[in-house]
Amino acid sequence: MRPLAFDHKRNVLSLLDQTRLPAETVWVDCRGAEDVADAIRFMQVRGAPLLGVAAAYGVALGARGYAGTSADEFLSHLERVARLLRNTRPTAVNLGWGVDRCVEHARRVAHEQSVPAAQAALLDLANTMAEEDAAANRRLGLHGLKLVPERAGILTHCNTGSLATVEYGTALGVIRAAHEAGRAVHVYVGETRPLLQGARLTTWELWQERIPMTLITDSMAGHFMAQGKVDLVVVGADRIAANGDTANKIGTYTLAVLADAHRIPFYVAAPVSTIDLTVGSGAEIPIEERSPLEVTRIGGAPIAPEDVPAANPAFDITPARLITAIVTDQGIVLPPYEDSLREAVEQAQAPVDSSERDD
Amino acid sequence: MRPLAFDHKRNVLSLLDQTRLPAETVWVDCRGAEDVADAIRFMQVRGAPLLGVAAAYGVALGARGYAGTSADEFLSHLERVARLLRNTRPTAVNLGWGVDRCVEHARRVAHEQSVPAAQAALLDLANTMAEEDAAANRRLGLHGLKLVPERAGILTHCNTGSLATVEYGTALGVIRAAHEAGRAVHVYVGETRPLLQGARLTTWELWQERIPMTLITDSMAGHFMAQGKVDLVVVGADRIAANGDTANKIGTYTLAVLADAHRIPFYVAAPVSTIDLTVGSGAEIPIEERSPLEVTRIGGAPIAPEDVPAANPAFDITPARLITAIVTDQGIVLPPYEDSLREAVEQAQAPVDSSERDD
Repeated sequence: MRPLAFDHKRNVLSLLDQTRLPAETVWVDCRGAEDVADAIRFMQVRGAPLLGVAAAYGVALGARGYAGTSADEFLSHLERVARLLRNTRPTAVNLGWGVDRCVEHARRVAHEQSVPAAQAALLDLANTMAEEDAAANRRLGLHGLKLVPERAGILTHCNTGSLATVEYGTALGVIRAAHEAGRAVHVYVGETRPLLQGARLTTWELWQERIPMTLITDSMAGHFMAQGKVDLVVVGADRIAANGDTANKIGTYTLAVLADAHRIPFYVAAPVSTIDLTVGSGAEIPIEERSPLEVTRIGGAPIAPEDVPAANPAFDITPARLITAIVTDQGIVLPPYEDSLREAVEQAQAPVDSSERDD
Repeated sequence: MRPLAFDHKRNVLSLLDQTRLPAETVWVDCRGAEDVADAIRFMQVRGAPLLGVAAAYGVALGARGYAGTSADEFLSHLERVARLLRNTRPTAVNLGWGVDRCVEHARRVAHEQSVPAAQAALLDLANTMAEEDAAANRRLGLHGLKLVPERAGILTHCNTGSLATVEYGTALGVIRAAHEAGRAVHVYVGETRPLLQGARLTTWELWQERIPMTLITDSMAGHFMAQGKVDLVVVGADRIAANGDTANKIGTYTLAVLADAHRIPFYVAAPVSTIDLTVGSGAEIPIEERSPLEVTRIGGAPIAPEDVPAANPAFDITPARLITAIVTDQGIVLPPYEDSLREAVEQAQAPVDSSERDD
């Protein structure tokens, strides 16, 4: 099951509401870019790769809000739509990347053909990006497979599965590929406070595929590493800087330090679209600060006295030196990352026939 | 406010129900040892030092269940009571220590005087132990004060305040002493999943004393250390082995590894009664495994799909090499711990006039 579906007859994007899982399976219908922006802001849809695709559909829906025929007017309208979507969440680069790609495509088609052609082309592009993401994750999973021993305790964080992508997943895609290849994997799922994506979403995905797992609180990671239960850590990414520094869900950095102290390999798994060569290092990546109520309440119920000050950075930065390798759809990227990340991006941009599929 | 009170007219031990805080202030009335054992098992009363005192009252209440006059019969009855209380929770040594001290005292008085005298003496001893704990924590706080700079970001875990002790607290006692001495402290309170003692109890105590704080999820500890916000870590202890290895609330080890990686001092604060010289190293300390439901539910509400396997070790072991110093009521204990811990224990057992009060 994909976490998003576009109904071409009704022109509606349906998003699986990830704030209600696993208790309820509810779909949110988006009829315009505002609906999509709201769903992103409230985290009904989340996961860096999925955000790129959801935003693309958001641009396509927003584009239909212009009824005229002037390419220039259409493009300024589209720029407002793009800004609305880009501003929902600052850290994940895939979101801005998806929006930019759509706007550029629309600009070309609107100028070369017509506004209606551009409107139709945006929907086609969103569909293409969805299929590309699904295919990229499958490739990523197969590359990552090489890093997983025959028997492996694997610690992961947050949700990076089919719910965070269009299909298959990134870090969870590596785990899925290893399980499908017959490796005896046992997954230690960090619950991932504050929003519990590990407890709510990752367990739900693993359970459906009967992949063996143990749910743990985030604070237990060190204990299980010390006990020798963890052979590798694999996490996703929201943005990878040119030097390899990686922004990911809060708590990732803590896991990377723990892995380093226990000499356990620490892998980041993300499609090439997560690499942002315009950002030199992690220090330049904006970290979204979300509402303290996500920390002081769980499922709406207070867990701390009212008005207690709480911090809620949604992400942290893991420095490149703690990352053993980065698994992408273009292959495994190794340190030093300055060169290898640039090569991966160039390789992805090269014509399909020259891209390396067997690495 | 103390978290326990004994009503000498009604012979009832009232315990502040710590599972209901901060939402509700409810007292649990214990009329016998079974009631106390239940309250300990359900964690309505918790905190290593407080468990020692609560168990002492439990022995005193249990002793009243014998109506005869035979010292031998009384003492076998008392041994059953002691076993019931000791078996409630395996990790915190203060509990067994408190029970043993009471049984030994009762044995002496029952043989030298009478059963009724021993029954009365047990209540007196429980009262004495309560006052001793309050006084020990005040001394511990003043010793710890020396480790706190004029301005300090202090990370702590779980609850080690007046709710975990009879009064004042251990790790939180150090923080309290620093605040009372005019140091500009800012406390980073780890929420402490699964039972959220940090979010529910520590914030509640700090709030009442207007000590500046920020509540964080456990996973944020590394992030705030990397940001330079944490100058020291101070935590409590449930059992300290002869070599300095320390059992404390799950998540403590993760914080110790993080502190080490960031070259931040990591302090354990605990009364001498927490030191167990009969245990050579952390490997010999039993780790209580509690119900997975504490992980898969929060406040009774499920946060994961039903039947997902979850681990719930209530404690972890922090190796001595990661502990900068141990703050006790007898002074600051430094590595190598084999000698210094034995000295602290001997000092505590020495006659009062020779115990060092100015260290």
